[in-house]
Amino acid sequence: MSKYWNELTKKIEPYVAGEQPKDKKYIKLNTNENPYPPSPKVLKAISDANNSDLRLYPDPDCDKLRETVANYYDLNKNQVFVGNGSDEVLAFSFLTFFSSDKEIVYPDISYSFYPVYAGLYGLKARLSALKEDFSIDVEDFLKENGGVVIPNPNAPTGKYLDIKAIKRILEFNNENVVIIDEAYVDFGGESVVGLIKDYPNLLVIQTLSKSRALAGMRIGLALGREELIDGLNRIKNSFNSYTSDRIAQVAAVAAFEDDEYFKICSNKIIKTREKVTKRLTEIGFKVIPSKANFIFASHSKMLAKDIFIKLREKGVLVRYFNKPKIDNYLRISIGSKEEMDTFLEKVEEII
Amino acid sequence: MSKYWNELTKKIEPYVAGEQPKDKKYIKLNTNENPYPPSPKVLKAISDANNSDLRLYPDPDCDKLRETVANYYDLNKNQVFVGNGSDEVLAFSFLTFFSSDKEIVYPDISYSFYPVYAGLYGLKARLSALKEDFSIDVEDFLKENGGVVIPNPNAPTGKYLDIKAIKRILEFNNENVVIIDEAYVDFGGESVVGLIKDYPNLLVIQTLSKSRALAGMRIGLALGREELIDGLNRIKNSFNSYTSDRIAQVAAVAAFEDDEYFKICSNKIIKTREKVTKRLTEIGFKVIPSKANFIFASHSKMLAKDIFIKLREKGVLVRYFNKPKIDNYLRISIGSKEEMDTFLEKVEEII
Repeated sequence: MSKYWNELTKKIEPYVAGEQPKDKKYIKLNTNENPYPPSPKVLKAISDANNSDLRLYPDPDCDKLRETVANYYDLNKNQVFVGNGSDEVLAFSFLTFFSSDKEIVYPDISYSFYPVYAGLYGLKARLSALKEDFSIDVEDFLKENGGVVIPNPNAPTGKYLDIKAIKRILEFNNENVVIIDEAYVDFGGESVVGLIKDYPNLLVIQTLSKSRALAGMRIGLALGREELIDGLNRIKNSFNSYTSDRIAQVAAVAAFEDDEYFKICSNKIIKTREKVTKRLTEIGFKVIPSKANFIFASHSKMLAKDIFIKLREKGVLVRYFNKPKIDNYLRISIGSKEEMDTFLEKVEEII
Repeated sequence: MSKYWNELTKKIEPYVAGEQPKDKKYIKLNTNENPYPPSPKVLKAISDANNSDLRLYPDPDCDKLRETVANYYDLNKNQVFVGNGSDEVLAFSFLTFFSSDKEIVYPDISYSFYPVYAGLYGLKARLSALKEDFSIDVEDFLKENGGVVIPNPNAPTGKYLDIKAIKRILEFNNENVVIIDEAYVDFGGESVVGLIKDYPNLLVIQTLSKSRALAGMRIGLALGREELIDGLNRIKNSFNSYTSDRIAQVAAVAAFEDDEYFKICSNKIIKTREKVTKRLTEIGFKVIPSKANFIFASHSKMLAKDIFIKLREKGVLVRYFNKPKIDNYLRISIGSKEEMDTFLEKVEEII
């Protein structure tokens, strides 16, 4: 605490990111990174951009990247917003569309950055309790509110909400912005980007950190009607004109251009996820059906916390949340086949 | 305007960055970029980091970079904060230390992002009018306030405030944070980093976009007592845990490590600045004495706006601010010797 901090700084509770340990080499299954490297075309694009032009500011509008993404999703470039990771895009979205006079709604078990943004901007939030099976209670989003945020698939559960349910939510909330956070949509879910043409209140948020294996380069996207993207640009340009650097922009373009590589890697991860789910179930785990690059699992005989600690000792990091309702679950990122074989081996030793 | 925007989004006036034209090739003297490329060691470091690790999140704490900067300035690493360009660092600083209940103070002619941050966070600001010769009126900063922001050298004037004056301001404002924005300090000014040990209220902000030729990579720094840096981290971690990507971090480390190259380039720019100042004075310009990598100049016979337009037609971009008090001045970035020879040639044709 310092007398130089303002009241907000004193009272805010910052987000705590998954551990990035520096003490020794772990099998890292705790931050949902992609086990496969970025496309070789991404590395080539970075290499080509590594030149004296780095002395110049990047394109603040990210035109080439926005055109590439627009083309990929059959949008126009004014329906695409680029940020420094999807966390920044979410931070801007909360600030652009939500106000302190009306409660926003998101699931009680969800991405733990949402309540932090609400705290940062002094927003009131209503938490919608997940049902017993961790599915989202759609009815809770069909009540008066000042904005909706739903990750789909949800994190850390991996549960997917079907498009029909999302349409109902979009229809009811036609006066408010509905954010669908699709950080994990490429692992078996279906994006709602196609609904943008029908719903002016829909803002889809995506990241290149997971399915496109570029967590290290910080690129996030918002997709929606031009009026929503215009609003985001107003706030972004009141905060930092150049949020995406030269290398990040070319890397992202190349990642979207190499669709084949992206699909191959995503499919490998889906296959590994199904295999690991099956094996964990066989040895007494309850595994929530996942459409993400992680699974959420609980064991009938041993506490999640104990498994977490023992796995750590054996050099495997997974994520444990010491929070009501989910404190007996582990979130396990899907690594490579070899990593997951080692993980299963260690788990079997522990159980 | 959209019904989905909140009141802030509707009323905010975003910052307008210097033009990054895409229509044709200009001699760009409008955004204070460095005419020399980044150090060859920076390009080598980027090349080395361009590998499969880009799939992994960057170090959210930027440890290696903070250690490097701390070592360079004889600080400890907990006195160093890293952001996505100094604009982001400024945006976080306003949000961490200033409140709506007390007016902050900055010069009326200054970096035009400050009023935008004030608008973004609902802060009240008192503008201190520059004196006739564009120098800062120190007395204005020795009156009750809620925080101080001074760019040194000032932009767009290039005027430098000596350390004695800054000490007086720091002493008077011992209950408030005093931000000294040193974006341009490496071109002949003296940094106040050395005062951090004596003044717990001093926050120094620097950028790698100008003297270190890395505008394209977005790296900004805040330097100050640990309690100030802790506050910045609280706000940053409530907004985006990973603001600096893997490539930016290694590039910045290499830039600080190659001090010789940095000094050679900065000295070349200073020499060119002095030469251009002399020549412009000879042909009837009034040039404000500059300690930055730009000069601020006005002609006795021809309107700045007209010179700006004619230079643009001749393929040379400079910056013109259509604002009271400075609407007859041009801000001219110092390019390479060759660029400045062309610039002088075109100016002489116009005058």
